Amino acid sequence: MNNYGTLFRISTFGESHGPAIGVVIDGCPAGLVIDETFIQSELNRRKPGQSKITTQRKEDDTFKILSGVFEGKSTGTPIAIVIENQDQRSKDYSHIENTYRPSHADFTYDAKYGFRDYRGGGRSSARETAARVAAGAIAKLLLKTVGVECYAYVSQVGDLKAPHYTQLDLSKTEDNIVRCPDATTAEKMIALIDQVRLDRDTIGGVVTGVIKNPPVGLGEPVFDKLHAELGKAMLSINAVKGFEYGSGFDGVNLRGSQHNDEFYSDAGKIKTKTNHSGGVQGGISNGEDIYFNVAFKPVATIMQDQVTVGKDGSEAIVSGKGRHDPCVVPRAVPIVEAMAALVLADFYLRNRAARL
Amino acid sequence: MNNYGTLFRISTFGESHGPAIGVVIDGCPAGLVIDETFIQSELNRRKPGQSKITTQRKEDDTFKILSGVFEGKSTGTPIAIVIENQDQRSKDYSHIENTYRPSHADFTYDAKYGFRDYRGGGRSSARETAARVAAGAIAKLLLKTVGVECYAYVSQVGDLKAPHYTQLDLSKTEDNIVRCPDATTAEKMIALIDQVRLDRDTIGGVVTGVIKNPPVGLGEPVFDKLHAELGKAMLSINAVKGFEYGSGFDGVNLRGSQHNDEFYSDAGKIKTKTNHSGGVQGGISNGEDIYFNVAFKPVATIMQDQVTVGKDGSEAIVSGKGRHDPCVVPRAVPIVEAMAALVLADFYLRNRAARL
Amino acid sequence: MNNYGTLFRISTFGESHGPAIGVVIDGCPAGLVIDETFIQSELNRRKPGQSKITTQRKEDDTFKILSGVFEGKSTGTPIAIVIENQDQRSKDYSHIENTYRPSHADFTYDAKYGFRDYRGGGRSSARETAARVAAGAIAKLLLKTVGVECYAYVSQVGDLKAPHYTQLDLSKTEDNIVRCPDATTAEKMIALIDQVRLDRDTIGGVVTGVIKNPPVGLGEPVFDKLHAELGKAMLSINAVKGFEYGSGFDGVNLRGSQHNDEFYSDAGKIKTKTNHSGGVQGGISNGEDIYFNVAFKPVATIMQDQVTVGKDGSEAIVSGKGRHDPCVVPRAVPIVEAMAALVLADFYLRNRAARL
Amino acid sequence: MNNYGTLFRISTFGESHGPAIGVVIDGCPAGLVIDETFIQSELNRRKPGQSKITTQRKEDDTFKILSGVFEGKSTGTPIAIVIENQDQRSKDYSHIENTYRPSHADFTYDAKYGFRDYRGGGRSSARETAARVAAGAIAKLLLKTVGVECYAYVSQVGDLKAPHYTQLDLSKTEDNIVRCPDATTAEKMIALIDQVRLDRDTIGGVVTGVIKNPPVGLGEPVFDKLHAELGKAMLSINAVKGFEYGSGFDGVNLRGSQHNDEFYSDAGKIKTKTNHSGGVQGGISNGEDIYFNVAFKPVATIMQDQVTVGKDGSEAIVSGKGRHDPCVVPRAVPIVEAMAALVLADFYLRNRAARL
Repeated sequence: MNNYGTLFRISTFGESHGPAIGVVIDGCPAGLVIDETFIQSELNRRKPGQSKITTQRKEDDTFKILSGVFEGKSTGTPIAIVIENQDQRSKDYSHIENTYRPSHADFTYDAKYGFRDYRGGGRSSARETAARVAAGAIAKLLLKTVGVECYAYVSQVGDLKAPHYTQLDLSKTEDNIVRCPDATTAEKMIALIDQVRLDRDTIGGVVTGVIKNPPVGLGEPVFDKLHAELGKAMLSINAVKGFEYGSGFDGVNLRGSQHNDEFYSDAGKIKTKTNHSGGVQGGISNGEDIYFNVAFKPVATIMQDQVTVGKDGSEAIVSGKGRHDPCVVPRAVPIVEAMAALVLADFYLRNRAARL
Repeated sequence: MNNYGTLFRISTFGESHGPAIGVVIDGCPAGLVIDETFIQSELNRRKPGQSKITTQRKEDDTFKILSGVFEGKSTGTPIAIVIENQDQRSKDYSHIENTYRPSHADFTYDAKYGFRDYRGGGRSSARETAARVAAGAIAKLLLKTVGVECYAYVSQVGDLKAPHYTQLDLSKTEDNIVRCPDATTAEKMIALIDQVRLDRDTIGGVVTGVIKNPPVGLGEPVFDKLHAELGKAMLSINAVKGFEYGSGFDGVNLRGSQHNDEFYSDAGKIKTKTNHSGGVQGGISNGEDIYFNVAFKPVATIMQDQVTVGKDGSEAIVSGKGRHDPCVVPRAVPIVEAMAALVLADFYLRNRAARL
Repeated sequence: MNNYGTLFRISTFGESHGPAIGVVIDGCPAGLVIDETFIQSELNRRKPGQSKITTQRKEDDTFKILSGVFEGKSTGTPIAIVIENQDQRSKDYSHIENTYRPSHADFTYDAKYGFRDYRGGGRSSARETAARVAAGAIAKLLLKTVGVECYAYVSQVGDLKAPHYTQLDLSKTEDNIVRCPDATTAEKMIALIDQVRLDRDTIGGVVTGVIKNPPVGLGEPVFDKLHAELGKAMLSINAVKGFEYGSGFDGVNLRGSQHNDEFYSDAGKIKTKTNHSGGVQGGISNGEDIYFNVAFKPVATIMQDQVTVGKDGSEAIVSGKGRHDPCVVPRAVPIVEAMAALVLADFYLRNRAARL
Repeated sequence: MNNYGTLFRISTFGESHGPAIGVVIDGCPAGLVIDETFIQSELNRRKPGQSKITTQRKEDDTFKILSGVFEGKSTGTPIAIVIENQDQRSKDYSHIENTYRPSHADFTYDAKYGFRDYRGGGRSSARETAARVAAGAIAKLLLKTVGVECYAYVSQVGDLKAPHYTQLDLSKTEDNIVRCPDATTAEKMIALIDQVRLDRDTIGGVVTGVIKNPPVGLGEPVFDKLHAELGKAMLSINAVKGFEYGSGFDGVNLRGSQHNDEFYSDAGKIKTKTNHSGGVQGGISNGEDIYFNVAFKPVATIMQDQVTVGKDGSEAIVSGKGRHDPCVVPRAVPIVEAMAALVLADFYLRNRAARL
């Protein structure tokens, strides 16, 4: 199923080289001011062709709202958003019709469905994430009405790591093309990505997400824990290989006496001195910053010959053509933010039914 | 919502010190032989009091099937399983009625629901996972009919790490009390946990899951990617802080040319030479082993005084009492297996609708 | 799937002659006072053996709450309720093991699942509705906190009809054993049912439901219209053949100029002069009484020989044995109320997310 | 939520006078030949302006598939279909901006959402059903691959009734503009509707649905009974007031000995001699024809002055303008068929998981 969310629910559709991609947002509360300029600015952050370190595919990614908005406000009915595909150069992809690109979804789609729309990866293309960004923009608008802010930035490229988020000024994320708020690290990252591109290769990275000012009480206690849904949402983004929140994998090495976050009272508000919990305890937000890391593998499409097989099992050689990202994380930043916003917006609405 | 799964769906219920916990399994196909001895053996692997490195709480964890099984086989109707709580010593927990234990769910439950069943952590207790293990046992029985096997083992405690799963004999997992199939590492892990226990402290660890012989084609392409659901399922287990599959966070450092898994044909079957993909490409299983790591934090309950606050915000001191695990991962092994089996069983059924 | 509801969600389980039946209620808001005496009184209204016109099967239908309630109030976690089966006389049902009773579910269960629990109809027995009544009692408790009352009564048995609900005193429903608030009609109905029983036959009837004081705005506009969910809920009750609300099938004969409900303003509140709409317009409650009719067929089990076939297709004779209802509607009254309450409770919670 | 179905799932969107309406079909199995000519022919059966007894609003109702179809076949990914709104004459509707039309959804939408898109009824317009017809066409294509056929026809207008479906030739439904396969009754119905139109009034009717050649075993036993989902699906269509299947409300008057459908064996296939069950027993199809009646109220928009209130509660007069159906049932026929096909297609896929 191509939908996500329980009360704030999105359904995306569309293939890379079909007529359009889009999303239907169902369950957006009525009365929300839908700022179309903001939605476009979010799409612009994700769209290809932004800089020398991203793919040069040209897509305007202009959107059209087909329903659910009247006189500038959400009506409570489904908001359908469509983004037409412009740059469809289908000829680029004829070489993969009968060949399985390594570490792509070509083989698994064929195995599952019997055939596939092979043009540009079809449904498995990261182009689908534009629909998420559009929906996420509306989720962000909803969250802003209660003061919640969703941030993300590039915290690692290859082995280059930025400092911990608490030492960064997150307002500087958009100051450079790699979207790392630490200027020094950003410079090194850009140089590394550029080198990788010249090597006709690709490299992985990490995006860190930070949610500021979350309400206390979001998340459902057992299967739909706040961090479990965040994890699923992030892992559903193309190329993601791992998710951790708060202390994450490093927390494994700590003792309980080091890891526990002591409570204290600050002007009548209960807070924690440290935040290894990453703002979530027992699956429910405690009001501290929610933060998490999302690992992205190196992009599978490389400008080099690779050995593979054809549909019929015969050996074949395949090589990337045209326009691809040497590193996906700079463009993944708005996608991570969008998915985080969708998770939070949904839990925000679900929480309205928690008490009498 | 306290349920998980789309077609093979479970709903769990119960508090640590209420009359019983349990699970309703809806959507188990009719005709499956329900091996009750196997279910009990799985519950025994999870139950407390197994060894010196686990809590000494005494629970038989004997279960009763109330419905859905007739003449030893599933009927296609809901299978309800109940496990009574025996060792309820409520007095043990009176000290936490009005105090918030650090890094527990006491504060967030109160914040969300207005009050809580404080006895033994109530619903937030890991006791709830017994219900998952019972349901997971049935999922395993279903998967066995198509040859799928779900393994898990302890791969890390503190900074002690076992070798990669491909270098281990997974049939040896149950040979020692820490459930690490590498005897040398296991011995060190046990010593470390024992030391931590003597220190009245706790420590974290990693459980690795391995699914052997998965069918090709499981997983849904966009939001319900196979690894995304696995991630959610694992992150929904108490104390889990991170999830990664295949190359995971380490894959970030690799180049695409190193990371890509080349295809080859082996006696008519398409396979990959390496398996950085962890058996999942584009969210769909490709038939290779599915493997993943699950990070567990150190248990929050420690036998030391900690500063915290009461309900009213006043400063308080709290200390663990009685019987607690110094390290949760040995008992988490069957839980990770159970959740993996539940994910796979659900996708196995969902996949039946993929094609005409 | 054996569950119902989106936010106030129930999952039932259990077979007629298994160890127990039960229900898990997930999503009940925290803080609701759970009045166990009320739940039992509702179960008593449904239980067999109440009068000469109902089956003489003996079941106490005493329930046990296993979870989700602490210090008398709902905690926000799942409320599991179990009702043990006492009167299991399995021998009664040996004659139907290999024979398909006419107009029962024996054949279709076998066809769908390959085999069935044939004892007392197994899962297809109306005994399952006891679980709904228990859950419905909690839904009623929730609705009472906002002033909503759910009524039902027997409005027709065979061709004997009671007057329109607006001419009845619904508080008199429990005054007689047939649960028709009009004493004169009730007497005739009882005589008819008694005659039918002596004829070793059965007869159908209609239960009318009335919801007083519903909030304005409940129901979701397109597929989950308030009356569509009410219809599904009622049609899911055993033996139901039809559902209509407001003017129903009779409305077909009216002209729009007769059928439309004119609005007027009454002390600042917008109301309608007539109520052919049955309290629902565009799928959403308008604040007027919601009323509807539910048609029940004659019970399929009759104390007469009927021609049928065995599993193998050979001709066979089957006859009802023991204890059956000659007319199901008196005992269906609390079931209709319960399902109505479950629908309303769910929409009441869902409506909390309708606006910013 | 604006979606319907579990595995074959549709989400509709769009307002009467917005840019477009549409539907996303998720879960259509891969490999289905998508016959666009057939989809258009179904839309043409529903579209306005077909005859003198339907509204004269002009809409081409031409559709565009945006995704999910490649080389003429479904790919297993979401199929998005968009139908642009052409005839938007917004001026026609200015009179209802601040006034509540009797028995329309104007008041309830305002009450629920705080405001509404008042143009042409916005989301509550029956224009939404075009999206259902498009999706239903694809469901029909899927069902045809297993031999299932979904029919509907007008069986009653006002008090004029056609004979029982078993006495009719359903292939003649499209032979006249009222869609009643009995020519004599059809003529009378047309005359009646024409008279009602001249009276500037409206009238109700009944559409009968018949599903031929259903597989045995469709439907889920408890809440999602086949007839319960059919009922919900039908009741979700605008203006529907009632649903009955098989013997329906008339079955109430029968004795069990008359109503029961005796089984017999016909060349190894188990069938029933009569079909009061309407092809469904215990919520599961038994292989006989599934048939049901759907009651439609008279259209609320009449060309006469009616007393009502404005938003502010002040008395107002409102009258229909322009182009409206004097009787909705002729155009409802393809909608009933579409919803029936959607229900059957979903259960057909769900049934694949019923057995091992």
